[in-house]
Amino acid sequence: MDIKQAVLAQARQAKQAARKLATLSSSVKDKALLEMAAGIEGQREEILSANRKDVEAAGQKGLSKAMIDRLTLNSGRIAAMAQSLREIAAQPDPVGSVDRMWRRPNGLEIGRLRVPIGVIAIIYEARPNVTSDAAGLCLKAGNAVILRGGSEAIHSNLAIAEVIGQALERSGVPKESVQMISITDRQAVMELLTLDEWIDLVIPRGGEALIRTVVENSTIPVIKHYKGVCHVYVDDQADLAMASRIVMNAKVQRPGVCNAMETLLVHQNVAAQFLPPMIAELRGAGVEIRGCPRTKLLVPDVIPATEDDWYAEYLDLILAVRVVDDLDAAIDHIATYGSMHSDAIVTKDYSRAMRFLHEVDSAAVYVNASTRFTDGGVFGLGAEIGISTQKLHARGPMGAEDLTTTKYIIFGNGQIRE
Amino acid sequence: MDIKQAVLAQARQAKQAARKLATLSSSVKDKALLEMAAGIEGQREEILSANRKDVEAAGQKGLSKAMIDRLTLNSGRIAAMAQSLREIAAQPDPVGSVDRMWRRPNGLEIGRLRVPIGVIAIIYEARPNVTSDAAGLCLKAGNAVILRGGSEAIHSNLAIAEVIGQALERSGVPKESVQMISITDRQAVMELLTLDEWIDLVIPRGGEALIRTVVENSTIPVIKHYKGVCHVYVDDQADLAMASRIVMNAKVQRPGVCNAMETLLVHQNVAAQFLPPMIAELRGAGVEIRGCPRTKLLVPDVIPATEDDWYAEYLDLILAVRVVDDLDAAIDHIATYGSMHSDAIVTKDYSRAMRFLHEVDSAAVYVNASTRFTDGGVFGLGAEIGISTQKLHARGPMGAEDLTTTKYIIFGNGQIRE
Repeated sequence: MDIKQAVLAQARQAKQAARKLATLSSSVKDKALLEMAAGIEGQREEILSANRKDVEAAGQKGLSKAMIDRLTLNSGRIAAMAQSLREIAAQPDPVGSVDRMWRRPNGLEIGRLRVPIGVIAIIYEARPNVTSDAAGLCLKAGNAVILRGGSEAIHSNLAIAEVIGQALERSGVPKESVQMISITDRQAVMELLTLDEWIDLVIPRGGEALIRTVVENSTIPVIKHYKGVCHVYVDDQADLAMASRIVMNAKVQRPGVCNAMETLLVHQNVAAQFLPPMIAELRGAGVEIRGCPRTKLLVPDVIPATEDDWYAEYLDLILAVRVVDDLDAAIDHIATYGSMHSDAIVTKDYSRAMRFLHEVDSAAVYVNASTRFTDGGVFGLGAEIGISTQKLHARGPMGAEDLTTTKYIIFGNGQIRE
Repeated sequence: MDIKQAVLAQARQAKQAARKLATLSSSVKDKALLEMAAGIEGQREEILSANRKDVEAAGQKGLSKAMIDRLTLNSGRIAAMAQSLREIAAQPDPVGSVDRMWRRPNGLEIGRLRVPIGVIAIIYEARPNVTSDAAGLCLKAGNAVILRGGSEAIHSNLAIAEVIGQALERSGVPKESVQMISITDRQAVMELLTLDEWIDLVIPRGGEALIRTVVENSTIPVIKHYKGVCHVYVDDQADLAMASRIVMNAKVQRPGVCNAMETLLVHQNVAAQFLPPMIAELRGAGVEIRGCPRTKLLVPDVIPATEDDWYAEYLDLILAVRVVDDLDAAIDHIATYGSMHSDAIVTKDYSRAMRFLHEVDSAAVYVNASTRFTDGGVFGLGAEIGISTQKLHARGPMGAEDLTTTKYIIFGNGQIRE
């Protein structure tokens, strides 16, 4: 059987399973999630042993230390995977609610029922925990899922998928609800992306190159999670002590994630007072500073920032710093260089706070708080499958409810259109 | 200037305009809509004269009578365009609402603010009224719009766009908010579809070939309005008099639209009683019947239906008829051949009605009513830009609110992440 046929066969099975999944009760789905958690803990040794094969192969292929770290499972990470599934089970079921229902003059009663999307394909890179997280969130929302992890994690992913399949069977959920594409050939992804008759949504999770490939080749709708080039703008009406706490937190607390600050913008009127001690404090925490000419005037030994620095997602202890004329210049900078992820203003001025909130076109816009809060769990939405930086369907942290859609249900008693 | 540069320049202008549009008050937008309506009526002669050029050229090119009818404007159609803009002005503004806001344990207050999407491209075929309808709906929702009509309507579309541009200027709305691509070369569409940095959404309106081309070539998210293969299922527990009224209405009242019935499914237990008089009545209204073998057994002179008939969107006085074993067979038929648009069951049985509602995966599912009601205006949603048959972002009749997105707004007082 060739690759095209093999992938198509799995997509067909997923679509069949999706019809059954859509009618499952919450309690059956939650039981399956708990069985999945128990299975992952119970078969820890099988999963870890498969993972060792991947880690060894990665070492032989000379993958980077960071890559190998993301790939490696241990007891702690296994426990976290199980815990995450239990938390998903404890969340409310997003399926089945009717937010509003109304009656038309002719007596028709119309409502919008929340229903699963159908079949979702997740295309991701190294981290094997995405396998159980994604399967869990898709199942919670009543969707069948087709998983296509990176070739470097294939043994781990197949072992986890095997455990999940057994858990589904024990719970009376069709085993075909979770499909793992075991063909590591890149052609399998290309074939998958054309199956718009069977797959309703593709979510790529990984670097820019992966996402770009998916967007350019998919005839299925895609939800993107691009980079986070997040800004903090310190206004001249800011409480500077608060500004300095927020800047430190947004840059240093966990620099490798998409909601960490990459560029600091400072109003020219407070730059001389704020920047020298701020930069000293950041440097004390190991942060390298790349500054605009006005920053360099105040702190002469900063590295000059180039145009590329304003676009950069460092994911590291590096910060671009720019002195701006005013709020308008800050908003313009964010519109030009930002990635519409998370941006913050620090100010005591009410009307500037409101202008920033309304005029900055990002998934999450903050007043007087760190950008680091952009996260499904922190926002109170439950586990997230990613943070969408696009505007269609889901924007910002994307949880189980964003893996559903609606349909109109119409109750009549014989109405016809005149 | 080559085509790529010309299209890019318009997309850039649209994106600039979108930033201003996003902050306009409802009253400014509504004033612009009323000015557009007044302009279209006031400059009726210019528009009709431009339209005559298109109609003449269409005649010379030998376009079909139906095409020429769709292309032709007259006083009545001009008045309807203006009226539609006035109705859009009278609708509530979808932008600016915060559906819910909540406080987190650390005191952060988080809300989802409804905001415009940004820049929307509409790619459509002959009807020139789409130009004003689409411009009006996009403006209502605070979006800039790039319009790309068919080459056969180019003079009409340019004349309407000119009137709209003047109306925007009179109202203090950036003229660049409504862009008409005047290059009729097909390459202009191909270039447009790659501008994902400037354009947030593409909506193709037209035949399947157009939609397929857009889906296959776009790196921008697309909302599709595919065909409507709508079904009415007459259960053996139906009120047969009601069923017959609904069947007649769904097929005959306006056969050329996407929510008209194309296939009738009848439970085997009532087929002998229901079908012969039903088919006679349909034929009396000029409907051609294509039946399955069991239908042919009951009404021997029907044309035998082929496999293609079950997939067909006739948009005409033709009906496919199939006798099915039971509700499950009806649901299976719809899942196999339907287009997930609008489907109806006629039954007095409560549990079958509920199963049909839940198990048929279509944008609109009806109990005891005609499929002809699927329409934004009839549903009470206001003017619609189309009926989405996809599941992401918007499903079913798509009005101004579906041309918006949300962003998270977060009010803090110095919170940092621990």
